[in-house]
Amino acid sequence: MLEKVRIILVNPSHPGNIGAVARAMKNMGLSRLYLVAPESFPDPQAYYRAAGADDVLDQAIITQGLSEALKGCEYIYATSTRLRHLEWPSCNARECAQNIMSQPIQAETAIIFGRESSGLTNEELAHCQQRVYIPANENFSSLNLAAAVQVVGYELLMAYLSYQTKTASPEDRRLAAHEELEGLYEHWRSTLIKLECLDPTHPRQLMQRIQRIFSRAQLDSTEINILRGVLTAMNKKL
Amino acid sequence: MLEKVRIILVNPSHPGNIGAVARAMKNMGLSRLYLVAPESFPDPQAYYRAAGADDVLDQAIITQGLSEALKGCEYIYATSTRLRHLEWPSCNARECAQNIMSQPIQAETAIIFGRESSGLTNEELAHCQQRVYIPANENFSSLNLAAAVQVVGYELLMAYLSYQTKTASPEDRRLAAHEELEGLYEHWRSTLIKLECLDPTHPRQLMQRIQRIFSRAQLDSTEINILRGVLTAMNKKL
Repeated sequence: MLEKVRIILVNPSHPGNIGAVARAMKNMGLSRLYLVAPESFPDPQAYYRAAGADDVLDQAIITQGLSEALKGCEYIYATSTRLRHLEWPSCNARECAQNIMSQPIQAETAIIFGRESSGLTNEELAHCQQRVYIPANENFSSLNLAAAVQVVGYELLMAYLSYQTKTASPEDRRLAAHEELEGLYEHWRSTLIKLECLDPTHPRQLMQRIQRIFSRAQLDSTEINILRGVLTAMNKKL
Repeated sequence: MLEKVRIILVNPSHPGNIGAVARAMKNMGLSRLYLVAPESFPDPQAYYRAAGADDVLDQAIITQGLSEALKGCEYIYATSTRLRHLEWPSCNARECAQNIMSQPIQAETAIIFGRESSGLTNEELAHCQQRVYIPANENFSSLNLAAAVQVVGYELLMAYLSYQTKTASPEDRRLAAHEELEGLYEHWRSTLIKLECLDPTHPRQLMQRIQRIFSRAQLDSTEINILRGVLTAMNKKL
């Protein structure tokens, strides 16, 4: 159940943090680490701080962009402490872990962690269906990267241990994979531009609003095909 | 409610860990740090890793021994991942936090964290009423010191937030302070030696067993006075 979860770090700047994340992951029974454009990796400092979780580092997958790291994912969560201008469906770390345990066992799941200094951009956040936050002191709310992974991993393990004691069968409906959703969004974007609803030089938040709608909708593949069929039909008219 | 909790680090060897602990504490709304014989403190590395939690470091109380750091405490928890030869009452981090929130608001409470390399000795562990463990991968169960404080602090904040939404009044019975218990144990020890039950050169686990009994009993001051009265009476006979 924990094997379906990938932990994605976007642009981590300190290799020591990557190592501390690997240790926290292995402590909590997680093994799949993705690094999007890390500043320095592999690095001896990462192995030092991993304190024996070398296998997690050795098997880490490095990608250039976030989309590549999300390939194949059905469920995507992004961690964030900052409140955003545009509200997004959100849950705390405990609810996130319980959700993940109630989703199908083969449903690839990603939890995205942002940069040490600046978190995730709105564009990156738009990939996720849910925002995850860790309750914290409101005057001092920014956790160290590995500390955030530690808390989320801990909640996943706690939820897993409680899930193990039940025999509940999770629901069967499978969601569309990330790349299918991305294809849909791109289809929308080009269509909106053609429709002159979207000015690519001044995009404002239109695409984010669209993405938010479909994120919340938890689409499956058939529904994506239907929507894209509509867009194709629209495009033919233009 | 979180103000009654002190976080005690026994012999921390890396000042960076002390700083990371301070940050994790402040993130979770905790402020009272005790350092028992730290190897290097104050230290710039601690302030660097505290990332702004300087106030927690500035106000940290440094003691030579663990007993001094426990002075005035009614409830004492010690974290431990290792299973011990002699079993001790134990709870996981979540249960610990819920217990603490159900105890009186003025009841001074300590949570002890052991050395990075070797944890707590059996003698140190004997000060506590309950052992706290963080569920973890059984093949890789040793968390970084700051990661352990992060998880325990997170559970305290979660329990506090849930406690805030209730208006339950915690029970009124106040426990004896740590130094009263220590006095009782010393009284027992000297009595047992006089009784030739305890050979100070080969003490075995006798005192630990005694302490475990009285830890579990959650004594108040009156009960301590009664027990010590009995011991005094015994000593007079010897």
